[in-house]
Amino acid sequence: MSSSSNQLHLNAFLMGVGHHEAAWRNPRTDAHRVLDIEHFQELARIAECGRLDSVFFADGLAVGPRVEHNPQAIFEPITLLSAMAVVTEYVGLIATASTGYNDPYNLARKFASLDHISKGRAGWNIVTSGGADEARNFGYDDTPDHAGRYERAAEFVDVAISLWDSWEDDAIEFDVESGRFADPAKVHTIDHVGERFRVRGPLDTPRPPQGRPVLVQAGSSESGKNFAAQYAEAVFTAQRTLEEGQAFYRDLKVRVIKAGRDPRSLKILPGIVPFIGDTEAEARSLEQEFTDLISPAYSLRQLSTVLGVDLTEHSLDAPLPPLPPIDRIQGNKSRYQLVKDLAEKENLTVRQLIGKLGGGRGHRTFAGTPEQIADEIQLWFENEAADGFNVMPPYLPGGLEDFTTRVVPILQERGLFRTEYTATTLRGHYGLDRPVGRFAAEAEPLVVTA
Amino acid sequence: MSSSSNQLHLNAFLMGVGHHEAAWRNPRTDAHRVLDIEHFQELARIAECGRLDSVFFADGLAVGPRVEHNPQAIFEPITLLSAMAVVTEYVGLIATASTGYNDPYNLARKFASLDHISKGRAGWNIVTSGGADEARNFGYDDTPDHAGRYERAAEFVDVAISLWDSWEDDAIEFDVESGRFADPAKVHTIDHVGERFRVRGPLDTPRPPQGRPVLVQAGSSESGKNFAAQYAEAVFTAQRTLEEGQAFYRDLKVRVIKAGRDPRSLKILPGIVPFIGDTEAEARSLEQEFTDLISPAYSLRQLSTVLGVDLTEHSLDAPLPPLPPIDRIQGNKSRYQLVKDLAEKENLTVRQLIGKLGGGRGHRTFAGTPEQIADEIQLWFENEAADGFNVMPPYLPGGLEDFTTRVVPILQERGLFRTEYTATTLRGHYGLDRPVGRFAAEAEPLVVTA
Repeated sequence: MSSSSNQLHLNAFLMGVGHHEAAWRNPRTDAHRVLDIEHFQELARIAECGRLDSVFFADGLAVGPRVEHNPQAIFEPITLLSAMAVVTEYVGLIATASTGYNDPYNLARKFASLDHISKGRAGWNIVTSGGADEARNFGYDDTPDHAGRYERAAEFVDVAISLWDSWEDDAIEFDVESGRFADPAKVHTIDHVGERFRVRGPLDTPRPPQGRPVLVQAGSSESGKNFAAQYAEAVFTAQRTLEEGQAFYRDLKVRVIKAGRDPRSLKILPGIVPFIGDTEAEARSLEQEFTDLISPAYSLRQLSTVLGVDLTEHSLDAPLPPLPPIDRIQGNKSRYQLVKDLAEKENLTVRQLIGKLGGGRGHRTFAGTPEQIADEIQLWFENEAADGFNVMPPYLPGGLEDFTTRVVPILQERGLFRTEYTATTLRGHYGLDRPVGRFAAEAEPLVVTA
Repeated sequence: MSSSSNQLHLNAFLMGVGHHEAAWRNPRTDAHRVLDIEHFQELARIAECGRLDSVFFADGLAVGPRVEHNPQAIFEPITLLSAMAVVTEYVGLIATASTGYNDPYNLARKFASLDHISKGRAGWNIVTSGGADEARNFGYDDTPDHAGRYERAAEFVDVAISLWDSWEDDAIEFDVESGRFADPAKVHTIDHVGERFRVRGPLDTPRPPQGRPVLVQAGSSESGKNFAAQYAEAVFTAQRTLEEGQAFYRDLKVRVIKAGRDPRSLKILPGIVPFIGDTEAEARSLEQEFTDLISPAYSLRQLSTVLGVDLTEHSLDAPLPPLPPIDRIQGNKSRYQLVKDLAEKENLTVRQLIGKLGGGRGHRTFAGTPEQIADEIQLWFENEAADGFNVMPPYLPGGLEDFTTRVVPILQERGLFRTEYTATTLRGHYGLDRPVGRFAAEAEPLVVTA
């Protein structure tokens, strides 16, 4: 078995009215709901009814080429999850945020605040922001190099951890009698002086309920995997076959062990885009219904961005042109490799490639009956390819409802997934210990400054 | 009459379990609720029941000397207000955020998100962050100089406005048939290149429901007042007498006119800390109940910070020692001047000064019956000293409940305050127009980049 508790972990990756790029054009969705906070609150409730570990939002810091053909992310993830936190009690809340274009103090504080608001359900998907269009919104002409971004990320996370730990767990006394709110000897400056950051601390908020939010990562480059091995407690990844999934799983768990950690302390969750039908034929027809709505012009632009080559004038019925080598890609290297492999291994035309990518941008799509989807999940889980799945409903809310009401009960019957929550924190759902704070043993007094 | 609509504007300035520094020690409050999001949601509902224009949170980016004796701000304001937005429908939501230690892109996006979440109720109290302890959490040894902070603030707000305006109001088409989500010709790069920021844009979110969140400001220095005259739509200020209030009101409205704006487009809201009793004696006794709980050690440290001189060893029963001149104060100049004036004009000992400051840190406290408080509000309102008030309940939720259920009905009976909301946005409550976007007339196509 691949999981300590012998239980799957399931995350709902939410995006507008669905992951399929044409979801908003399908009458199964109401595109206007991308602007409606109640839509997202409903999604959180559906995920919680399904006893899922968490919900999650991706994020980018630029509009990019998608504005014409795809509903934007209207809401910023941390504010959005704050509004979803207060209509739920159990489900974890994972926000993507960039180490490239934030300050550690501000971001650590926002995640601490989300963790306090949700009473211990915050998670942070750490991204380094590879897009040149993002760089240009923050005073840079181009993206910092790949290695430099991960060096910054490591220092950033280190500072954030110190800040979350800067208040010891028992720092607050609430001593009404003496008038002492907190013991200043248990509220520490962190005095970080590093390559990229100088941060004195302490953080302007007591230690979050989880000690630290759950740290999540999704890059699959060498730097990305090493970073995950050191810091991440969950990894979202795109793997298309059981064998690829197993290879990635083995590789990353070995890195975790080499980093001196228990391999069970990092959960590996491949993405899956489930098209669910009463029969396999019905599921395939559902998938086709979405494929037929894809706008080739939009897809070509997205593909051009991922592959670093202009395809907008390229024939749809020809194979891909020669691609630049991966070391020329400064953006998302794992996505580039995944798309390149897919096109080459299956010898696809651009049109076919676009169809395959439309559901989950390179994540695995799977059309089948609830039993077939449960079988596939179980197969990966029991064969060391996954500790669970990052579920990417092609349309919302319907696709999430179908998954939680039709697939989840089968996994529960098979004893693979919780039937009731046994914890109230995301850390608890993942079976992770609450980390001991960095200052827990010492007692350095807070130096008060004017 | 001092207001265009002949109606008062009332903001509830919220802080933990109350503005009085000893509020958390008084059995009228439950100090543990500073950690409880539901406490803050309840406060928002109380303000909305009272038909108040808005609720508001101050903010700082460092722990400072208050940690030992006063409950911290546990929650970060923008996440906190996101959670309060979804349990209310009308009340405005004003968050303090710093132009000194944020990026315009990130902050503009968070306020846009709060405005979308609340369907048009966000406000931004713009602060420049004067504390050296704040600077040290962001890589600086000391605070940038006062003038430089305001120059940065002006450029920051200018960029933020361009970003909010970067999507024209009708940019989103939702054209399911053609597959066009938005018209790229109506989503603009802003191409800002200034002294301190280079930001390409567009913002990663459509134009907020209010066009722009309501801009609020609270500094009363020369730079602060000039900044307010140019940008602010509401100003929070501390004025202790009607005459001082009138002088400030006149001065600021003249500056607004000189900046080429309608003076009614900026609302001036002095702070008031109301102690409410059935009789004046009962109200005074309520105030004394709080004064008796003040911790002198804590107050001396706070006062030392404000005045830039170490008072922690100073006798409580002597007057203040000589103070440094105001041009040596790099932090909050208006607070320094206010405290200095108060001590000198009333010839106070340090102990007396601490008692006076305990309620509202220099804001005006007023102990009286509901009628007396309503009279005072009306007096200021009708004599060009205020367009409304920034109500700072000494303890929460009780002090806010008393104000909304006992003082507000009197103001309503007198025709001075709305009995029902007539708008659903904060801009609407203030009678402000929704601003026309900077790109509304032109049509520059979005240049798509890889």
